[in-house]
Amino acid sequence: MAETDTSSALSHPLIESDHIEGTAVFAANGKRIGTIKRLVIEKISGHVAYAVTSFGGFLGVGSEVHTIPWEQLHYDTKLHGYHTTVTAEQLRQAPEFSRGDEALLSRYERQKLVNFYAEPM
Amino acid sequence: MAETDTSSALSHPLIESDHIEGTAVFAANGKRIGTIKRLVIEKISGHVAYAVTSFGGFLGVGSEVHTIPWEQLHYDTKLHGYHTTVTAEQLRQAPEFSRGDEALLSRYERQKLVNFYAEPM
Repeated sequence: MAETDTSSALSHPLIESDHIEGTAVFAANGKRIGTIKRLVIEKISGHVAYAVTSFGGFLGVGSEVHTIPWEQLHYDTKLHGYHTTVTAEQLRQAPEFSRGDEALLSRYERQKLVNFYAEPM
Repeated sequence: MAETDTSSALSHPLIESDHIEGTAVFAANGKRIGTIKRLVIEKISGHVAYAVTSFGGFLGVGSEVHTIPWEQLHYDTKLHGYHTTVTAEQLRQAPEFSRGDEALLSRYERQKLVNFYAEPM
């Protein structure tokens, strides 16, 4: 059978900036824990800096939006989504500025966030 | 005067994936020649591969959409947009697959496009 347009786009190694919303995020145990709302990109280098991600249920208190450094997301070509080792405990203790929909962080905040998630809890 | 939200976002070094559309593109002579419709990003590396860009008037035949390799776009922090040395002649002679709204190119097409625009005309 021919692939549908959707499955073809899912398995393509590239994604369009206006089709990023809804990309799945999976926990270390393979459970789907959230979806990407938007990526935030460095204008000069063209590299993704972090992803604003909605977590539903994972934290046990409804849906929450968190900013996750790109280094914590690893694309899985079979699942068509990103794996992360970020834990519910980390999300709960993450810096205040990263727990919300404020997408444009300062250089200081970005570094603080990278350091926070790089540290094992 | 305090900056408005808009000018603050314009001068920020980061941009949200859902706010990319409309970013200005300028020719070598400083003239505004187009706007970015979307960026196309490598899912695994998180690097921008190319930009689907609308050129209006530049080609003298109404508005046209072209896929431009990321290497041909250089962010200008003063103009809040991308400079390019791509010429109208190059756009006219660009490979057929890059002259339209087909955003997900194959690996072969990407390489062909990078080579085409890297070659001086």
